[in-house]
Amino acid sequence: MFATVAIIGAGPAGLLLARMLHNAGIDSVVLEHRDRAYVEHRQRAGMLEQGTVDALRACGAGARLDREGLVHHGIELRFDRRSHHLDFPDLTGGRSVMIYAQTEIVKDLVELQLAEGGPLIFEAQAVGIEPGVVTFVKDGVEEKLGFDFVVGCDGFHGISRAAIPDARTYEREYPYSWLGILADVAPSCEELIYAHSERGFALHSMRSPTVSRLYLQVPNDTDTDDWPDDRIWDELDARFAVDADWKLMRGPIFQKAVTPMRSFVTEPMRHGRLFLAGDAAHIVPPTGAKGLNLAISDVVVLAEALTSWFQTGSAELLDAYSDTCLRRVWRAEHFSYFMTTLLHRAPGQTPFDTRLQLSQLHRIADSRHAAAELAENYAGVR
Amino acid sequence: MFATVAIIGAGPAGLLLARMLHNAGIDSVVLEHRDRAYVEHRQRAGMLEQGTVDALRACGAGARLDREGLVHHGIELRFDRRSHHLDFPDLTGGRSVMIYAQTEIVKDLVELQLAEGGPLIFEAQAVGIEPGVVTFVKDGVEEKLGFDFVVGCDGFHGISRAAIPDARTYEREYPYSWLGILADVAPSCEELIYAHSERGFALHSMRSPTVSRLYLQVPNDTDTDDWPDDRIWDELDARFAVDADWKLMRGPIFQKAVTPMRSFVTEPMRHGRLFLAGDAAHIVPPTGAKGLNLAISDVVVLAEALTSWFQTGSAELLDAYSDTCLRRVWRAEHFSYFMTTLLHRAPGQTPFDTRLQLSQLHRIADSRHAAAELAENYAGVR
Repeated sequence: MFATVAIIGAGPAGLLLARMLHNAGIDSVVLEHRDRAYVEHRQRAGMLEQGTVDALRACGAGARLDREGLVHHGIELRFDRRSHHLDFPDLTGGRSVMIYAQTEIVKDLVELQLAEGGPLIFEAQAVGIEPGVVTFVKDGVEEKLGFDFVVGCDGFHGISRAAIPDARTYEREYPYSWLGILADVAPSCEELIYAHSERGFALHSMRSPTVSRLYLQVPNDTDTDDWPDDRIWDELDARFAVDADWKLMRGPIFQKAVTPMRSFVTEPMRHGRLFLAGDAAHIVPPTGAKGLNLAISDVVVLAEALTSWFQTGSAELLDAYSDTCLRRVWRAEHFSYFMTTLLHRAPGQTPFDTRLQLSQLHRIADSRHAAAELAENYAGVR
Repeated sequence: MFATVAIIGAGPAGLLLARMLHNAGIDSVVLEHRDRAYVEHRQRAGMLEQGTVDALRACGAGARLDREGLVHHGIELRFDRRSHHLDFPDLTGGRSVMIYAQTEIVKDLVELQLAEGGPLIFEAQAVGIEPGVVTFVKDGVEEKLGFDFVVGCDGFHGISRAAIPDARTYEREYPYSWLGILADVAPSCEELIYAHSERGFALHSMRSPTVSRLYLQVPNDTDTDDWPDDRIWDELDARFAVDADWKLMRGPIFQKAVTPMRSFVTEPMRHGRLFLAGDAAHIVPPTGAKGLNLAISDVVVLAEALTSWFQTGSAELLDAYSDTCLRRVWRAEHFSYFMTTLLHRAPGQTPFDTRLQLSQLHRIADSRHAAAELAENYAGVR
């Protein structure tokens, strides 16, 4: 088997790249370790920057997104029992974000790919990358996929990253995790709420007008069995408490999971004909919702570079790929670290540390520049 | 002896307060532990916010300041072997700062106070504060100073802070110090340079057009004997290195000292008729140059509150004193922490941490909001 571009991984990055290449007349094959149902149901992020929405629309995957996505014009910060709204269009010169779950993007892109794209092979486990060929296992049989270019969109635990020799890696692990739930209840307000509390961080989000997505900061290695539903709701109530009318709506919880938090970057993101995109190259903690948006940004840059190479023979954009992406990656790494350490309570945090967090939060509420700096980073630095 | 307002400490805060009260017709006595020569020659800060300059001018201590002070319209950040200039008037709507050494302010205020103020008693060591009376030792003899109000301007090691019962304190020590030098050589450029380097932080500053003030980050407990002049100049050269024309001018070093770095806040800043101002209540690390400006800001607020009390009988401003000051104090504490951790190299700092610092520095260079947020805090939040 041969593909001009071999793509390892059918997450949003791999699928969108296949789609963009298809639209540019460049053939590809996507190899995905898992089956279709697994890929379409793993719960991930759901906050899309304007640039992400634009990319999905431009490749023909915007119809359901535009119908079902929830446009958000800001977020709410909650601290000192007060609420503060950040108005993104006002602070950023017109930008907004959209809430639409990553799983839904994957469903839309899989459907498009199967209808009119190149091969998308599920349950095909890539096991080796050599110059010009990917080895993968399908139905217990080892097969070869030849390529001109190969793109690793296979996530943090994929094999692609290891194929870049002499890579430099940068890493930070955080001393807390998120307990995330999905509940069959309408969101308690229209916006995301990022809550700073003496008890730890909490986030109010949503998947749809009828499904709430809520998170609690918990210690690492927390067992969901220790968090029966009532305890979760009570703790959310305590962390979201404000001196104003506010009620967190409760409903049946149908998913609970604990996610650790990590920052990770590998450099460079390219070695010869191998390119890394998305989580294969970089991980951010979820505060700030940058992971999906970085992955999409990577493949937008890469699709343009590959198209330029095939159309003009110029390697200029391909050669710039790693540096171009990494500038944005490090901005997002810093912003995610900033949001994470601003809002979470670290083990051993001193009262001085807490006062610094509150001083920064009050500054964001009081200063247009401080607010705009947060809003620009959140809505996506251009 | 009796004073309407007893002031402990003849640093810039105590002396300016005495001056402002004198101008408002309120008598005071200033007790200073050290002698005049000591007070007039201890080396401290030298960056004055606009509000500090305004306060000195308003009380009649602006003549020499306006003649000899150096107006600065910005600072330079240096990182990745590049320079980036922050233009304060452009970023802050017209604000600038002034370079004029704290020792010179003290000389000006001492001269004014001795010429036409109330008693300023040197070598008078306050040893106790009870309701309505300060006990102090002068020439080996214990004396009493009665008061309506007492203000502790006696610095971090003074006795006043302990007279506030049930105070809450907030503290952070930093794992590095500054080795500061004074050298008989013209500054190498007109502005302050804050340099981020793999070797640690360095700061280029000046005392006058003929005296340079330079600092190097060094480990805590550094002995100046380990830093002969040549080593200091070589290390400064290495940390200020840029890919551009630049030469650090060398000259005879006539002072070397190592200063540890600490953040400290006590709350509240008032107990009954006792008020704390300046370092007696709060310490910031010197990065950001906020210590002197906070002290001046405290006594401006206090002078207005005391004047209001004597003129109208209203305690409203006195009651608000602590909260009013602490809002500004915590902003400065956060900013000082931000500047310190952005620019210094911590022991055990990981490559990831360094990349976050550089991402933030590049963001300040690229984003007007990020630059303005730094400039506003540096030039003084109103």
